[in-house]
Amino acid sequence: MSLIFHERVGLNGRRISPFSWRIRYALAHKGLDPVVIETRFADVERIRVLSGQHFVPVIEDDGVVVHDSWSIACRLEDHYPDRPSLFGDAIGRGTARLVNIWSDTVLGRSMRSQVYADFIRCIDPGDRAYFRSSREALLGMTLEQYSAGRDAALPALLETCAPLERTLSEQAFLAGPAPAYVDYIVFSVFQWARIGSPRDVLAGSPGTDSLRAWRTRMIGLYGGLGDRFALYPSEQETA
Amino acid sequence: MSLIFHERVGLNGRRISPFSWRIRYALAHKGLDPVVIETRFADVERIRVLSGQHFVPVIEDDGVVVHDSWSIACRLEDHYPDRPSLFGDAIGRGTARLVNIWSDTVLGRSMRSQVYADFIRCIDPGDRAYFRSSREALLGMTLEQYSAGRDAALPALLETCAPLERTLSEQAFLAGPAPAYVDYIVFSVFQWARIGSPRDVLAGSPGTDSLRAWRTRMIGLYGGLGDRFALYPSEQETA
Repeated sequence: MSLIFHERVGLNGRRISPFSWRIRYALAHKGLDPVVIETRFADVERIRVLSGQHFVPVIEDDGVVVHDSWSIACRLEDHYPDRPSLFGDAIGRGTARLVNIWSDTVLGRSMRSQVYADFIRCIDPGDRAYFRSSREALLGMTLEQYSAGRDAALPALLETCAPLERTLSEQAFLAGPAPAYVDYIVFSVFQWARIGSPRDVLAGSPGTDSLRAWRTRMIGLYGGLGDRFALYPSEQETA
Repeated sequence: MSLIFHERVGLNGRRISPFSWRIRYALAHKGLDPVVIETRFADVERIRVLSGQHFVPVIEDDGVVVHDSWSIACRLEDHYPDRPSLFGDAIGRGTARLVNIWSDTVLGRSMRSQVYADFIRCIDPGDRAYFRSSREALLGMTLEQYSAGRDAALPALLETCAPLERTLSEQAFLAGPAPAYVDYIVFSVFQWARIGSPRDVLAGSPGTDSLRAWRTRMIGLYGGLGDRFALYPSEQETA
C-alpha cells in the first residue's frame, strides 16, 4: 500500500479545510495511515500538475490520483473493502451522497457567513491575499461585509440544523449507533467553524443539546482526532 | 403471515396520506400483500382502540400493532429480513432516519402551503369539517389564508428541493442505483402534492429536470403503483 494525502493547512499547521477534515476522519475510520503532504493555497501549481485541478484534498492511492472529497471517499471504500465500511452498502452510499450535497450547499453556505470574516486569520499569512481576493471576487463584497449580518443569520443556521438535532436526539450518530461517512461530512462543517472562528455558533443556542453532544463525541473519535491540531489562533499568534 | 394495513383514504377511495403512501411502497418493495382496511378520519375511534393513538397508517403484523410510518418501516425490515431490504444495513437505516426527519419537516412543511387549500376537496365529504377545523386550529388561520402566499413561496420550495435535484442528476434514485425507503419517504411528499392539488409544483420550474424524471420513475415502480388510485378530483366529482 502506498497512500499519500495532500491536505490543506493554514497558520502554523492548522487544518483549515472541511473537505480535508472529512477525508482525515475517513482515513482514520479505515485505519489507514497515509503520508501527509501539507498543502498551502500557494502550492496550487503542485496540485494542478498532479491532479489537473486546483482543489485539495487529493490522494495518491497506489499511484492513482483522486481529487474531490466524495470521489476520494468512494475510492477508499472500494479499494479497501475489507476495512470498516464508510457507507455500508449501496443504499448507504446513495443516501450519503444526498447528505453530502445537502451539507455542502445548505449547511455549508449557512455556516460560511458565520465564519468567513474570522477565518482569514487561520490562514497562512502568505496565503491571505490570495484567499481574500479570490473569495471577495466570488462574493461580490468584502469578507467583513459578508459576515456583517451573521448575528441576524444565526436563527436560519439553527433552523437548518434542526433535522440534525432531532435525529441526534434519537440516535448517537447520523449513521445510527456508530459513526460513518455521513457523520464525517456533517462534522467537517462544524469542525471548520470550530477552527475558523473564536465564536461557537451552537453555544447558548436553545435546541442544540444533542447536536453539541454529538460534536463532542465526534471530536473524541480516533484518539481525539478533532483536537489533534490547533484551534483558532490568539491575537498574539497572528500579530 | 397475517398482515393488515390500515390506510388513510379520502374521496372515493383516493389515497391521500403521504405517510400511508410510503408504507404502501415499502410493502410493495418487500413483496408483501396485506389486507387493506380503508380508514377515514371518521374512523378515529377504531384506530385509537387498536393502537392507542389516532394517526394512520397502522399495521397489524402477526398480531403486533405498530403505528408511525418510521416504526412500521423498521418493523417490516426486521420482521421480513429475507425480503429486499428497505435500508441496506445499520448505516443506511441511520441515514434514512435523518432523511425522514428532513423530509417531514423541511420539505413537507414547504409543500404543505402549496397544497393545503386544494387538498380539502380530495377528502371524503364527511371528513372535511373535521379536517378544516383541526388544521385551521393548528395553523391559526384558514386553509385558504395559509395557501394564499403559495406562489410567492414556490421559490423557497424549489430551493429546498435543490439537493434532491443535484443528487438525482448523478444517480437514478436517492438510495443510489435502485430505490429504497429514502426514495419512498421523499416521493410520498410529491405524491401527496400530485393527488392533493391540480397544480404541478414542479411543472415549468427550471432546475427540476432530474427530480421530475425521478418522480416519473417512482410512479412507474411496482406496476405503476403511483397511478393505481385516482388523482385530483374534477369539479364534477366534488360537486
